[in-house]
Amino acid sequence: MIVVMEKGATGPQIQHMVQRVEALGLKAHVIQGTERTVIAAIGEKRSETKEALASGPGVADVVPILAPYKVASREVKKEPTQVTAMRLKVGAGAVGIIAGPCSVENEEQILTTARAVRAAGATALRGGAFKPRTSPYSFQGLKDEGLKLLAMARKETGLAIVTEVMATEDVELVSEYADVLQVGARNMQNYRLLEAVGKAGRPVLLKRGPSATMEELLLAAEYILNEGNPHVMLCERGIRTFESHTRFTLPLATVPYLHHKTHLPIVVDPSHGTGHTYLVPDMAAASIAAGADGLILEVHPDPERALSDGYQSLNLPQFAETMAKCRAVAAALGKSV
Amino acid sequence: MIVVMEKGATGPQIQHMVQRVEALGLKAHVIQGTERTVIAAIGEKRSETKEALASGPGVADVVPILAPYKVASREVKKEPTQVTAMRLKVGAGAVGIIAGPCSVENEEQILTTARAVRAAGATALRGGAFKPRTSPYSFQGLKDEGLKLLAMARKETGLAIVTEVMATEDVELVSEYADVLQVGARNMQNYRLLEAVGKAGRPVLLKRGPSATMEELLLAAEYILNEGNPHVMLCERGIRTFESHTRFTLPLATVPYLHHKTHLPIVVDPSHGTGHTYLVPDMAAASIAAGADGLILEVHPDPERALSDGYQSLNLPQFAETMAKCRAVAAALGKSV
Amino acid sequence: MIVVMEKGATGPQIQHMVQRVEALGLKAHVIQGTERTVIAAIGEKRSETKEALASGPGVADVVPILAPYKVASREVKKEPTQVTAMRLKVGAGAVGIIAGPCSVENEEQILTTARAVRAAGATALRGGAFKPRTSPYSFQGLKDEGLKLLAMARKETGLAIVTEVMATEDVELVSEYADVLQVGARNMQNYRLLEAVGKAGRPVLLKRGPSATMEELLLAAEYILNEGNPHVMLCERGIRTFESHTRFTLPLATVPYLHHKTHLPIVVDPSHGTGHTYLVPDMAAASIAAGADGLILEVHPDPERALSDGYQSLNLPQFAETMAKCRAVAAALGKSV
Amino acid sequence: MIVVMEKGATGPQIQHMVQRVEALGLKAHVIQGTERTVIAAIGEKRSETKEALASGPGVADVVPILAPYKVASREVKKEPTQVTAMRLKVGAGAVGIIAGPCSVENEEQILTTARAVRAAGATALRGGAFKPRTSPYSFQGLKDEGLKLLAMARKETGLAIVTEVMATEDVELVSEYADVLQVGARNMQNYRLLEAVGKAGRPVLLKRGPSATMEELLLAAEYILNEGNPHVMLCERGIRTFESHTRFTLPLATVPYLHHKTHLPIVVDPSHGTGHTYLVPDMAAASIAAGADGLILEVHPDPERALSDGYQSLNLPQFAETMAKCRAVAAALGKSV
Repeated sequence: MIVVMEKGATGPQIQHMVQRVEALGLKAHVIQGTERTVIAAIGEKRSETKEALASGPGVADVVPILAPYKVASREVKKEPTQVTAMRLKVGAGAVGIIAGPCSVENEEQILTTARAVRAAGATALRGGAFKPRTSPYSFQGLKDEGLKLLAMARKETGLAIVTEVMATEDVELVSEYADVLQVGARNMQNYRLLEAVGKAGRPVLLKRGPSATMEELLLAAEYILNEGNPHVMLCERGIRTFESHTRFTLPLATVPYLHHKTHLPIVVDPSHGTGHTYLVPDMAAASIAAGADGLILEVHPDPERALSDGYQSLNLPQFAETMAKCRAVAAALGKSV
Repeated sequence: MIVVMEKGATGPQIQHMVQRVEALGLKAHVIQGTERTVIAAIGEKRSETKEALASGPGVADVVPILAPYKVASREVKKEPTQVTAMRLKVGAGAVGIIAGPCSVENEEQILTTARAVRAAGATALRGGAFKPRTSPYSFQGLKDEGLKLLAMARKETGLAIVTEVMATEDVELVSEYADVLQVGARNMQNYRLLEAVGKAGRPVLLKRGPSATMEELLLAAEYILNEGNPHVMLCERGIRTFESHTRFTLPLATVPYLHHKTHLPIVVDPSHGTGHTYLVPDMAAASIAAGADGLILEVHPDPERALSDGYQSLNLPQFAETMAKCRAVAAALGKSV
Repeated sequence: MIVVMEKGATGPQIQHMVQRVEALGLKAHVIQGTERTVIAAIGEKRSETKEALASGPGVADVVPILAPYKVASREVKKEPTQVTAMRLKVGAGAVGIIAGPCSVENEEQILTTARAVRAAGATALRGGAFKPRTSPYSFQGLKDEGLKLLAMARKETGLAIVTEVMATEDVELVSEYADVLQVGARNMQNYRLLEAVGKAGRPVLLKRGPSATMEELLLAAEYILNEGNPHVMLCERGIRTFESHTRFTLPLATVPYLHHKTHLPIVVDPSHGTGHTYLVPDMAAASIAAGADGLILEVHPDPERALSDGYQSLNLPQFAETMAKCRAVAAALGKSV
Repeated sequence: MIVVMEKGATGPQIQHMVQRVEALGLKAHVIQGTERTVIAAIGEKRSETKEALASGPGVADVVPILAPYKVASREVKKEPTQVTAMRLKVGAGAVGIIAGPCSVENEEQILTTARAVRAAGATALRGGAFKPRTSPYSFQGLKDEGLKLLAMARKETGLAIVTEVMATEDVELVSEYADVLQVGARNMQNYRLLEAVGKAGRPVLLKRGPSATMEELLLAAEYILNEGNPHVMLCERGIRTFESHTRFTLPLATVPYLHHKTHLPIVVDPSHGTGHTYLVPDMAAASIAAGADGLILEVHPDPERALSDGYQSLNLPQFAETMAKCRAVAAALGKSV
């Protein structure tokens, strides 16, 4: 950690900060610049000692040198992690495709979708049973009934089931049916939920919050990893920016950036990331080209009649075309989807 | 709702959308423009019928006319709502000041702070017992013990206690001690928690998520109101933007905007909104001038040694000065703090 | 255009707005909803009549139906435009690669780079002679001398020269040497400059400003097109968001979105879009997969010693590898680079 | 400057970077941390030496310690600067009010406005003669004719004239009529224009670009100051964020932040900062409370018929009320408007 003193910082202020650094068990190293003094604190731990120094007298800034996450870090584990569930394999060279409707609506809808996405090459089925909705007046999902329908689809197709869990009190129930627990973007910093899915031990798909930094995302993963659950997939699903022609802005540089920083696999969600069906195929292909370890795509047999997110869902032929495109791009890069 | 058709939309597509509108129980009114056709859907309800139309064939856009929130709306209730708890009065002309440390740390810290902020004019005491922290390795709060210390401070000073509840399973416990349940920014869209604090019936301070729109904030409030709990205060605490010289960007136009749209009172948090102690007094005064119904301020007897958020906390004399400044501004505008 | 009246709008207010609409030469069509009245204004022109109505009494909102740009619009010209200059072909199926250093530094640097990028498959050479720099104390470019070195490189390699023009007074000079005039992101709304490059008639590479919307970008292009110059390439080079792990956020959905709205070709700049050399190859490949008609890449023989932007420049072998990757992805999608 | 090496950086890499630092004329100071090595570069100049080091082998990051601006810095000049022009006084305790229409439209409009704002307490008149417009099809201003009308208004009222200059070739003409040259937000990084207004010597009102950082704003000011013109006012007029209920997001913490970093005075523009007339009075008062040295406000005798920006203009009685409010707040803080 580097403590940058203000220009006019006095000798006693510098002395005071040296003592504060030493009180944290660190070694203080004072460097007298031409205009300012900085104190290098050596032996930094990854906890938030920055806070302990930033409000000291005469301190202009405190610059941490170490990233605050540990277990998620590529420095700690060099080999990429692969997460697997049934047919689904994500990471370490494998590219997994998770496809299905926003919400589970009824038996016919989910079975039709499951068969079609399986035939087109998906390895997991997504479908919401518990739906977090912006408005209390919107459809909130079929709940238990939805979970049962997902299990039925798995039985027939062998696809892994990926479904969202919204609250700690539901983790046990959802874990009975799901192969992968999805933590939604709105809950990325719901720490109790992170701890609960960490304890559940099942693979987790952790979606980036729409205003989360990379560090916050990795620290959210750290909450799960810290409970002893190493099966974490990170999911880029778009961020909030000034852009209004897409539902969110999908920043694909997340993929190579995270590959540099963490061993965890990265999944991209071009459906939420764009919010418009016609943009999804190109952005799915672009995600693969950027190095994504997986995709999660909204697919519905009749998007116009979907109970939620129809405007960003692919229909069944569109999904098959998107798969063909992604497969071609992956092959060009020496990978297989 | 206005359904805007694409330029080349065909007769059958327009006919199809008219039927879709009518199937929703609305009256369709077709308007042939010089370049495009639009269909006005009359009788719109506030539920998400937009979704049901946006993915129709030939549809370019769907423009809702009604806001999706009801109970929170100024159209529904014209008179401003006042929320009260012990000495604290917020809204309808009353300006309430909630002050105290980020975290409850120990008896001396919380009692010293409570006495000082009471003496300077605060009407409520804030203090975190359950702390949501970005890193799992940071101090997570004293929990039950913290709640007891807050109750002790209330007993001595008569200040209302405002403290965060992070999870549905804690609502009962926290409600035993707190006068106002705070829902943190990270949990603004934790809908189960919103429902739980709605059912608890206690006054709620609902913080805006750092990337939440006004509509999302009001719909989050609607989750609480919808459970029959009308005691909701909205809190602006800053948004995520490209600015990095402050911790968040504090957009004070939120205050007059929300006063226009809702009857609920608006509290501002200049501590999180700026992230730097030296910016807090001016932004507190500016919040009052913008029409805020209350402030929530981080105050610590010794910020340099605070276990969290010291860099944005006022010390006791700084708080007294800030109060004097706010009182002067309020008086100039015919209000009293 | 749709004029949405406030809930309590009075009869005289509605009547007043009808007259205002008619005074603009439009036909007013009043639609009485259950809760609100809206007035459809038929015959809308693409000029800013919204402004003329938005401040009327009782008006809640004005929703334009037509996009404000004309000549750039896909509705006006269905076939994609191809821009060509020497070997460079961009759009309508052709993918052009523009590569070279941030700044022209000296003869050896520019010639070495030109030969290498030509050999690896680039069709144009970029290089700044006039450099807009954030700080007045930074290197500002070799100016005339730099232009002459670029011309020398063209002579030897046949690469088209792409270089920035910063001011109207330089347009004539730069046009003598350049095959494509680049308008930088900072100047996207420097309207005099847009008019000047429009009049110059040379192909223009128009970079998106870091906070420009799609509509603003297309209207900036419209300034150039409106002077009779149809040779405009749009360039996505990243936007300002809260993300700080990359220099800008590169939103590739721009590419398919713009292809939907305009016939103009789209070039992507992954060097500025990421700001880190190690992220460029993956994002270059992703840009191609998203459908980009061209790339502009910073390449330097010795990035560590570059006078500007070394941290985001590819060295010569890295550029060759990036080209190979892009070529493979393009081939997979049935295109050639 | 602090050069942070990557975790696995080798001895030769560290040695290489030490030599690079020394080659820049700086003293290198190597600090061996427990996990990483950092090199402190002592003697840092304010030019962009960061660039020269950031792409070195094994370098993870380069952290500058000094701000890159000099002449604008509070470290260089402790006393606040006051800018004056005719009656207008801004800074060092004085609060100046600049009011008037978006565009000069005709003699009656500008004279009526000038008289009214003068009577209500404004000290300067704004009004656009050269108008930068997003669309080429919008009204572009009366140009020379507009300047003459402004001069007429000055003659009658004694108000200082503040008007925008869009291009270097207009600086001479505009300087003949204007007392303050306004550089618009779109031109904040039009460096030739900054140099030209620097040379012109007249007071300058420099508006913040909608995605400009504080450092970029201060470096833009530095371009003007560097030409020997010390009469620079900085203007906060709102930034681009995800918020869409206001035209821009007005971040008032800019005011105390800049007062901390620079001696230059700060003016706020709540008209563009909000984009809605009904939000302007509260945000004007809030700006004063935040410590603004001036306001610039759009005022029009008949906003509904304004040729531009009517939706964010105050009419004459609204302006008088806003002035009364601002005067009360200023008085409460010991200042006079």
